[in-house]
Amino acid sequence: MRSQTDGAGGLKHLISLDGLTRESITSILDRAESYRRFPGQPAYEGRELAAVTLANLFFEPSTRTRASFDLASRRLGAHVLNLEMQSSSRVKGETMLDTIYTLEAMNTDIFVIRDSEAGTPEFLIDHVAPHVSVISAGEAHVSHPTQGLLDVLTIRAHRRRFAGLKVAIVGDIKHSRVARSTARALRTLGTSDVRLVAPESLLPAEDEFQGALRFTRIEDGIDGADVVMMLRIQKERMAQAASLDDAAYFRTFGLDARRLKLAQPDVLVMHPGPMNRGVEISSDVADGPHSVIREQVNNGVAVRMAVLAAIAATLTRHRRPL
Amino acid sequence: MRSQTDGAGGLKHLISLDGLTRESITSILDRAESYRRFPGQPAYEGRELAAVTLANLFFEPSTRTRASFDLASRRLGAHVLNLEMQSSSRVKGETMLDTIYTLEAMNTDIFVIRDSEAGTPEFLIDHVAPHVSVISAGEAHVSHPTQGLLDVLTIRAHRRRFAGLKVAIVGDIKHSRVARSTARALRTLGTSDVRLVAPESLLPAEDEFQGALRFTRIEDGIDGADVVMMLRIQKERMAQAASLDDAAYFRTFGLDARRLKLAQPDVLVMHPGPMNRGVEISSDVADGPHSVIREQVNNGVAVRMAVLAAIAATLTRHRRPL
Amino acid sequence: MRSQTDGAGGLKHLISLDGLTRESITSILDRAESYRRFPGQPAYEGRELAAVTLANLFFEPSTRTRASFDLASRRLGAHVLNLEMQSSSRVKGETMLDTIYTLEAMNTDIFVIRDSEAGTPEFLIDHVAPHVSVISAGEAHVSHPTQGLLDVLTIRAHRRRFAGLKVAIVGDIKHSRVARSTARALRTLGTSDVRLVAPESLLPAEDEFQGALRFTRIEDGIDGADVVMMLRIQKERMAQAASLDDAAYFRTFGLDARRLKLAQPDVLVMHPGPMNRGVEISSDVADGPHSVIREQVNNGVAVRMAVLAAIAATLTRHRRPL
Repeated sequence: MRSQTDGAGGLKHLISLDGLTRESITSILDRAESYRRFPGQPAYEGRELAAVTLANLFFEPSTRTRASFDLASRRLGAHVLNLEMQSSSRVKGETMLDTIYTLEAMNTDIFVIRDSEAGTPEFLIDHVAPHVSVISAGEAHVSHPTQGLLDVLTIRAHRRRFAGLKVAIVGDIKHSRVARSTARALRTLGTSDVRLVAPESLLPAEDEFQGALRFTRIEDGIDGADVVMMLRIQKERMAQAASLDDAAYFRTFGLDARRLKLAQPDVLVMHPGPMNRGVEISSDVADGPHSVIREQVNNGVAVRMAVLAAIAATLTRHRRPL
Repeated sequence: MRSQTDGAGGLKHLISLDGLTRESITSILDRAESYRRFPGQPAYEGRELAAVTLANLFFEPSTRTRASFDLASRRLGAHVLNLEMQSSSRVKGETMLDTIYTLEAMNTDIFVIRDSEAGTPEFLIDHVAPHVSVISAGEAHVSHPTQGLLDVLTIRAHRRRFAGLKVAIVGDIKHSRVARSTARALRTLGTSDVRLVAPESLLPAEDEFQGALRFTRIEDGIDGADVVMMLRIQKERMAQAASLDDAAYFRTFGLDARRLKLAQPDVLVMHPGPMNRGVEISSDVADGPHSVIREQVNNGVAVRMAVLAAIAATLTRHRRPL
Repeated sequence: MRSQTDGAGGLKHLISLDGLTRESITSILDRAESYRRFPGQPAYEGRELAAVTLANLFFEPSTRTRASFDLASRRLGAHVLNLEMQSSSRVKGETMLDTIYTLEAMNTDIFVIRDSEAGTPEFLIDHVAPHVSVISAGEAHVSHPTQGLLDVLTIRAHRRRFAGLKVAIVGDIKHSRVARSTARALRTLGTSDVRLVAPESLLPAEDEFQGALRFTRIEDGIDGADVVMMLRIQKERMAQAASLDDAAYFRTFGLDARRLKLAQPDVLVMHPGPMNRGVEISSDVADGPHSVIREQVNNGVAVRMAVLAAIAATLTRHRRPL
């Protein structure tokens, strides 16, 4: 594990929620709430990232996460470079590292990196200059820290405390970076009852998600749950690993109104998006009164603003003088 | 028809010029003139869209219309998201509606939508939140309201009044959203003599363009015209519907200097662009003294600024308090 | 040669370093130094390009040069349009000139153009309006003026004077716009000893690079050099022209630590990027103590800011009054 803070405890990088204390997560969530604007309110506009340049390096396509980082950065005054990595430099044979060095030399301060291969964010941290930060926007199946933070921010907005909550995560947990980051954040904040619900073949290895209970029937897994978090199912994986088609998956692991009655009466339904309606979740549940799915998106921008502002404050302390 | 204004008469959406009164169109044109800067003058820079986020959702490729909305928005201080719809979310199976809800949750205030399918803008209006606006940047063959407005703004800059003008629209009228929106704007502003000039197979249905005269010979149609508006010919349609190739089309329906002499001596030549030079229009006419084609582009930015500013003013009244 | 200055000597266009005096180059370099911020310092943010719109017209893909112009423009307050030329307008049959006229009509002030075909920047200068500027970001094998300027800025930062310097340019000089622009800038600033080092088939025509010495053995060419500038080798050309594969090219013309010892003890190693490590340069040299390759990138942004600011100042004098 690379250190994600500087000597003074300031947030420097964010590529994993491992190692972040309850206090540091809480501090990010508090700051996020100060930036959060509900739909219909004018967005927060600030200068916390004035004279900061941020490069979005997305090796995987992503509309929503990139838009979220993009808006979070620009609303705080940053200049943003959106680089389509597959279609430009890699084609030209330039190595990723040379791209990084080039962008650093153009006074890029923050790299936001998303890659389907594991290890890239750590590799970057090992190679960037001391005054440059790295934020993961999704790393293979390993980590998606800002998603984990927005999930706990969403839960916190509806529940007093994390201790005593029952949280069921349902779907392809084995390959899910969201599940890993959110479960980690929950555990750090005090939730001990995290339930993993998936077909046998999509459950993670035994030594992962320590302390979590495992279920292979959704009815058992969401029984009495305070939060049900559905994961996006990847059709390729569903076919390979579980020999299921859409309809069969929905029959056995989909969340519909009938099954939702097994959970607490005030259960929160979550989904990181984009949803496969009719595959892992029915439309009436996705759009129903228990759903906080759109709040998650709203909180996503706020959490990213908070992370960016915290990192920018740290960077300012490490600036070379003019 | 969906209402495009709020209770107080403020412009809320703009997807059609149907239902807009002469006063409301005139008010937009007046405001557009205040924003217009001629080439060589410094562009207007304002804060009318400060803290406003606008998403360009273009399901059809478009360099010029997207650039026009992009600059209009940014010169008024908005944050703009340019989303390539075909290449990202749709691929991932996310429905358009989920994209809209996601962007709304990120505090997007205005959607600018262009789609080759009819009905999308109305569908959006039916589904967006009360504090969100929809602007059409071109809908199938149905409507292209900002093009209609920029066309009448261009005519107004050269003519005292709309009553008594003879305006000939020439080309593939059947499939043209430009023709529909511009003809509608002209009629609302008082021009009764609108002429549709096209091969039989490219004329619209009888119950459309009420009151317009129809011509199948360009010489008849532009005779004595104050304005000749040429449409871009789509090669696929020309071949299918009219069995014409480029040269044959130009011979029978192209506008050249010789034919232009049939119109008024001070005739205005217009074209929404992009032009097929040598197909629907000769280069000497496109670049000649009667052409106001580049003025149309210039007015396009101004009209879009005016529409955006009017909508932003309405949105401000509907904001949720902090 | 088109004039690149206005009547008062102000920089109006930049498409070639031919015809620029030592004084005008020096003035750009001085201004660039005022804009330069080293990595780790906050980037310069100014308003020199307020209300200026710049369009990047890249007919060739380029991550680094486009990002450099993009950041340079935005850090001075401009609005930037990034247009993918191949994928939009050309497909639709719109001629480049109509694209230019359209963007001019939208109050675009500066075009930055990159094209693998020769002649496009001059063609643009011949057609743009009097109040519009053209900057080349790379023209075929002909010219890359901002690269030439950043190269001499980098050398100037390490050496007192240009007179008396020995500069070796190594690689595919025949097809290199970088070599042409940098050699020109060096000659203008007083460096007479420029050495061209390449396989016979990649040396330029005899009447080019007047005054330069030619070498077909790298050991001879870099002997005693103060600066060794490696060029990116294009694999297609290497195969065709020199019948060499990567390994063979590196053996005969690659720069490694052993060969570098033939140069001056304080030699500067340069490369315009993106590098083919292990083909034209070894990694230990690219990243070694003599390398100023990342400084070149840093200086690239500063030089582009300086050129843009100088042009914007000229444009201001040519503005039409409101």
